Amino acid sequence: MSTATALIGVDWGSSNLRVFRMGAEGTVLDRRADGRGASTLASHQFADVLTEVAADWLAEDLPVIVCGMAGARGRWLEAPYAPCPAGLDDIASYAVTPADAPEVRILPGVAVWRDGCLDDVMRGEETQLFGLDAGFDRVIAPGTHSKWARLESGRIVDFSTHMTGELFAALSVSPSFVGGVAGTDDAAFEAGVLAGLEDGPLGQSLFGTRVGMLAGRVAPTGLQDYLSGMLIGAEIAGEAREGLTGRIALLGAPALVTRYRQALALAGLGDVAVADVDAATAAGLWRTWKAMR
Amino acid sequence: MSTATALIGVDWGSSNLRVFRMGAEGTVLDRRADGRGASTLASHQFADVLTEVAADWLAEDLPVIVCGMAGARGRWLEAPYAPCPAGLDDIASYAVTPADAPEVRILPGVAVWRDGCLDDVMRGEETQLFGLDAGFDRVIAPGTHSKWARLESGRIVDFSTHMTGELFAALSVSPSFVGGVAGTDDAAFEAGVLAGLEDGPLGQSLFGTRVGMLAGRVAPTGLQDYLSGMLIGAEIAGEAREGLTGRIALLGAPALVTRYRQALALAGLGDVAVADVDAATAAGLWRTWKAMR
Repeated sequence: MSTATALIGVDWGSSNLRVFRMGAEGTVLDRRADGRGASTLASHQFADVLTEVAADWLAEDLPVIVCGMAGARGRWLEAPYAPCPAGLDDIASYAVTPADAPEVRILPGVAVWRDGCLDDVMRGEETQLFGLDAGFDRVIAPGTHSKWARLESGRIVDFSTHMTGELFAALSVSPSFVGGVAGTDDAAFEAGVLAGLEDGPLGQSLFGTRVGMLAGRVAPTGLQDYLSGMLIGAEIAGEAREGLTGRIALLGAPALVTRYRQALALAGLGDVAVADVDAATAAGLWRTWKAMR
Repeated sequence: MSTATALIGVDWGSSNLRVFRMGAEGTVLDRRADGRGASTLASHQFADVLTEVAADWLAEDLPVIVCGMAGARGRWLEAPYAPCPAGLDDIASYAVTPADAPEVRILPGVAVWRDGCLDDVMRGEETQLFGLDAGFDRVIAPGTHSKWARLESGRIVDFSTHMTGELFAALSVSPSFVGGVAGTDDAAFEAGVLAGLEDGPLGQSLFGTRVGMLAGRVAPTGLQDYLSGMLIGAEIAGEAREGLTGRIALLGAPALVTRYRQALALAGLGDVAVADVDAATAAGLWRTWKAMR
């Protein structure tokens, strides 16, 4: 039967758990989600939570592959970072198995080292990247901590992280930016992107928002969108310092991906493909499992 | 008598009111403070609050000079910005008098215009700058919105604002930076300054703090100081993009000025004078009054 389960795939993020039941060739047969993210659990709780969420699937004694923060220090079991350049084979060989769940393989994250120092880390996004179709030179995964990865021949050769989402969350409730509702003023968003793309000192650009309000260039109702645009623009400008070429894919929640596409177009990068996170995660888990055998 | 009052000087900031009773030659004879800042008051309340705080002083029918946010739009009475280059004579000639207090002169702020657009504003700091001893080429007034002013022949020729203090306040309660107590870890502050001075994209440098924690370079107890250092370092690096030369004065609260001196020294700017804000404000109010006559 083509509906026989071959693999249980798990994406265990900081604040969410997603479980995929996969059949032959990695087809997603079913999926479940739970709010017990890795950052809310102690090491000994992971096996129980997974059993609660997917007891019927696990009863079949199938292999289980877990990506994401479950492998971070102090969580289920630390899976040390695979260093860049990292391919599927590296991810597979750095996987670890917790003592309380011998059928489980927890995948590592990926790290950039520079001059002997840990320079950047990702944990979970690597699996999504490996689930994309081949042919992308660069993948952007926007979010709380946006990742910009450079790919060569199927390996992650370098990446960097921008704290854009966390900056927005913090500043959007700060006195200078209170007012308006994000997502309602497209023109304000684009004006913010253009200001951010100038790549001035960020603290100075941010004060420019207040000046823009005083001068009537920024409407109070568009303040949150202007701020969002400025932070995304600054992120793109920061990456563009070292040049942006090749085929780019965007990987993230639809609303955020739409904003990044809009901002990238204003930066002259109109040819960007959009990938579905859920499909990429499942495909990445499947491919990593295949690389283990 | 040399103790006869000649002028009542008022520094009416967003969140505080300070009143100086000044004698001949601007000597400060007495001072009072009140928590009713300009941002908490409607236009018709200013005259009453000032009378409450300094009724006995005002009874002498003396001139009153007010600097700061009392002159912002929507406050006591808007005093439009004097454009750069701006000297004492410009500040004096842009002063306005509210209908409910004919003895009062509210001073304007100063604005930078670029290509026909309002580019930056200050309101209150200009009076402090004009109260400094002559001979400084650049004055830094750190704070919620740090000002960097360039002076030539006693005029403010240009300035820029960095939202450093507001960024710190917002980020210091954000998930990645919760932990530790600011002001306790000098080494973490200096490490943060050095990271900020690299002038990388700020969102990326900020994520570097998390990586530094993972790698053991940043102690959780020093997190707030590291963040503070990074933001101040980024501010200095942003200003240094256009070169920093000449005699520099620092004007601000003692604890903050100490941190900026330390950061400027790490940026190779060891020769910085420190000025007393209170004395500078009173002297600036006095000199502006003299320039009116």
